[in-house]
Amino acid sequence: MKQRPLIGVFDSGVGGLTVLAELLRQVPNADYVYFGDTARLPYGSKSAATVAKYAIGAAHYLEQQGIDFLVIGCNTACAQAYDSVRAAVKTPMIGVIEPGAEAAAGVSRKKDVIVLATEGTVNSHAYRKALEARGIKAEEKACPLFVPLVEEGWGEHSVTEQVAHIYLDDLFKGAADVMVLGCTHYPLLRPLLRRITPERIQIIDSAESTARKVAEALPHAASGGVSAPDVRFFATDSVEKFRRAGEKFLGQRIVDVTHVDLES
Amino acid sequence: MKQRPLIGVFDSGVGGLTVLAELLRQVPNADYVYFGDTARLPYGSKSAATVAKYAIGAAHYLEQQGIDFLVIGCNTACAQAYDSVRAAVKTPMIGVIEPGAEAAAGVSRKKDVIVLATEGTVNSHAYRKALEARGIKAEEKACPLFVPLVEEGWGEHSVTEQVAHIYLDDLFKGAADVMVLGCTHYPLLRPLLRRITPERIQIIDSAESTARKVAEALPHAASGGVSAPDVRFFATDSVEKFRRAGEKFLGQRIVDVTHVDLES
Repeated sequence: MKQRPLIGVFDSGVGGLTVLAELLRQVPNADYVYFGDTARLPYGSKSAATVAKYAIGAAHYLEQQGIDFLVIGCNTACAQAYDSVRAAVKTPMIGVIEPGAEAAAGVSRKKDVIVLATEGTVNSHAYRKALEARGIKAEEKACPLFVPLVEEGWGEHSVTEQVAHIYLDDLFKGAADVMVLGCTHYPLLRPLLRRITPERIQIIDSAESTARKVAEALPHAASGGVSAPDVRFFATDSVEKFRRAGEKFLGQRIVDVTHVDLES
Repeated sequence: MKQRPLIGVFDSGVGGLTVLAELLRQVPNADYVYFGDTARLPYGSKSAATVAKYAIGAAHYLEQQGIDFLVIGCNTACAQAYDSVRAAVKTPMIGVIEPGAEAAAGVSRKKDVIVLATEGTVNSHAYRKALEARGIKAEEKACPLFVPLVEEGWGEHSVTEQVAHIYLDDLFKGAADVMVLGCTHYPLLRPLLRRITPERIQIIDSAESTARKVAEALPHAASGGVSAPDVRFFATDSVEKFRRAGEKFLGQRIVDVTHVDLES
């Protein structure tokens, strides 16, 4: 591997940019290519077979860009297609679920964890399996309206707060002392979720945990580099829409976006 | 054309089943094939170029099934890709927007109409153009949370009522006396919307108007047939998910669903 690795990150859309934002913070001595499958998003409501097909296409596209390391920056793709992608690529890779589960297991004293995720991630029970393998009880909760509410820009809206109460209040009656944000859109709801979640429950963001694991895997890349990371973006739908929607997830300007058609 | 035509209907997913339901009611002496592009839904948030590509693929697939008449049962596809589909197929066809606009124009005494639709449909201004061509002023309003709320099964939920008030109350202050449901998911919100909409505003469902136009185009098919319509379904994502999600839109059992992969 080169001194300064090229790291590829893919997601169904712009949500994985919260993972990229953490990578840029924790693994700054690297360059990045990000692939957002915006023409076919969301993955969260689709079947495992369809998600696996799309995820493999994204991973292959990033391999063609010459990446040294691959991050599945999408909980649904990781939950439903980690093994399929693993079998289809040659590049060292990591998903967001094992790091998120490991971090949750590390801090839960009650050994009881809540996981918030899309319908697809919940149906796969990938988090439950990863947590049970660490002796932790997991309660997974699908929150299908959270992604559209974030995309509407209602991350702090009273409607979103009511929806969160409807989804979560019963879960808060249990013994759990950790709650995992198991979808890359959910960090944008973190302040609201923190307010309505009992203090005894710690909130874990899989994006942060994943970046930490990448930093461990690529220690040279985790220290400050001589120059800022070069970041290129690829999107399967309109580049203008990607740029506009993406900047609030990445927290910085998005410049270099190229349109890609994987279906032609 | 045969005495008993085969009519093809396509949509990004299950929403177009509200159009099919109206067709089965108003045009019963026909058989049907329905194509739901569930692997790539929704169309509503995607760019015109991407939607056009998907819509042409769907239309060609239905032509391969031997259809005599094509209905674009998706407002977004009709708004963003009617001309592209028109140029790509040989079959007589109709979309949902012209019939919806015509029905609205026919009943609006104030010549002032509200149109509720997806972001893609609104950005195309297809309804505004169709209404202005008939001398009607149109106010188009994107309601991005309505589709996810319907899909969550919250068509009668207090949260949905609040969202509807947030989207619509300012529009109700104007002079409009007609409101068009310009998305095939919205008929499932009709009782709720009727409750919160001032009485002076009549609600028009594009699905009903479209079926009426098909009945006019195929008069033999509009009278009762000797046998019930044969209806076959094709979906690009899981057939089980299509069946489960689709029955509440169609209002009856869905049996014969075949999986189709347009991307291989």
